[in-house]
Amino acid sequence: MAPIVPRSGDAVFANVERVNAELFTLTYGAIVRQLLTDLEEVEEVNKQLDQMGYNIGIRLIDEFLAKSNVSRCVDFKETAEVIAKVGFKMFLGVSASVTNWDADGMSCSLILEDNPLVDFVELPDTCQGLYYCNVLSGVIRGALEMVSMKTEVTWVRDMLRGDDAYELKVKLLKQVSEEYPYKDDE
Amino acid sequence: MAPIVPRSGDAVFANVERVNAELFTLTYGAIVRQLLTDLEEVEEVNKQLDQMGYNIGIRLIDEFLAKSNVSRCVDFKETAEVIAKVGFKMFLGVSASVTNWDADGMSCSLILEDNPLVDFVELPDTCQGLYYCNVLSGVIRGALEMVSMKTEVTWVRDMLRGDDAYELKVKLLKQVSEEYPYKDDE
Repeated sequence: MAPIVPRSGDAVFANVERVNAELFTLTYGAIVRQLLTDLEEVEEVNKQLDQMGYNIGIRLIDEFLAKSNVSRCVDFKETAEVIAKVGFKMFLGVSASVTNWDADGMSCSLILEDNPLVDFVELPDTCQGLYYCNVLSGVIRGALEMVSMKTEVTWVRDMLRGDDAYELKVKLLKQVSEEYPYKDDE
Repeated sequence: MAPIVPRSGDAVFANVERVNAELFTLTYGAIVRQLLTDLEEVEEVNKQLDQMGYNIGIRLIDEFLAKSNVSRCVDFKETAEVIAKVGFKMFLGVSASVTNWDADGMSCSLILEDNPLVDFVELPDTCQGLYYCNVLSGVIRGALEMVSMKTEVTWVRDMLRGDDAYELKVKLLKQVSEEYPYKDDE
């Protein structure tokens, strides 16, 4: 039998069910607006978006593993590359690049080359402090937790806040052993 | 110059920017969950989802008109067909059928053949009364209002509530004249 080869992000994205990106962008915008109205405090909105992302991420990882044919990554460096090149492509249709590794390979930055979440978005002055795309940090954190990596994901740069790129810092806090006292098929 | 021909829903959908449908489904689920937590009353959640849909619809119509090459519909019957065959396809990647016309052609039903919003969704007993997909009724209402049609859009059948289909009733309340005292280019 031929070995199962991991598929490129483009190949996966071409074969999954999709919806119109503008509908997604506007729907996401409607959530943020709703949260701003309901919660008032920008800091609370950041937390909720992150939590929503986490809840999405812990489910999205199943689709990712099922459709991408990606198997266990050898280390955190490979994991980061897979998120950037396959994960972002598969879900948002865009790629990211990985950079700014620290000396011990425990943290890096993901730079988004494009960001469909922010099309048509401008933040009013009252929303300074908002991390509009905070759902993304939550998704990554949630998805990685399901493959036994505890991470901290934070924004370093955000174009909606005047920076020149979207940059997420992903720091590996702890890699949980996956050895269980039993196997599924026993 | 060749006349501009309206494009089929499939053709339009193939050429727009898209994102992964599962990401959209999970994101929408996260909104509904958030609203249920924040608002507590199911009836309030229904209202908010409809309002969010309205806000989305009044913007989505621009993308629809720009990408579909659909021009002014001759009557409400044609409008309903265009929503079903081009609109649903273009944004959600699914079609709907139009049925149950009343005698004077002022109301009809849209039956969804597939509904990406509800993949993996089961409603707990505490959510009886929730119209989970109420964002859709708001989107249609909002979009039609921008082309001068005041409508009322309500759910007749909802599979999450045990029915055998998703059926939305669209009733034309008032067609506003588009004659203004001035033109844009004057």
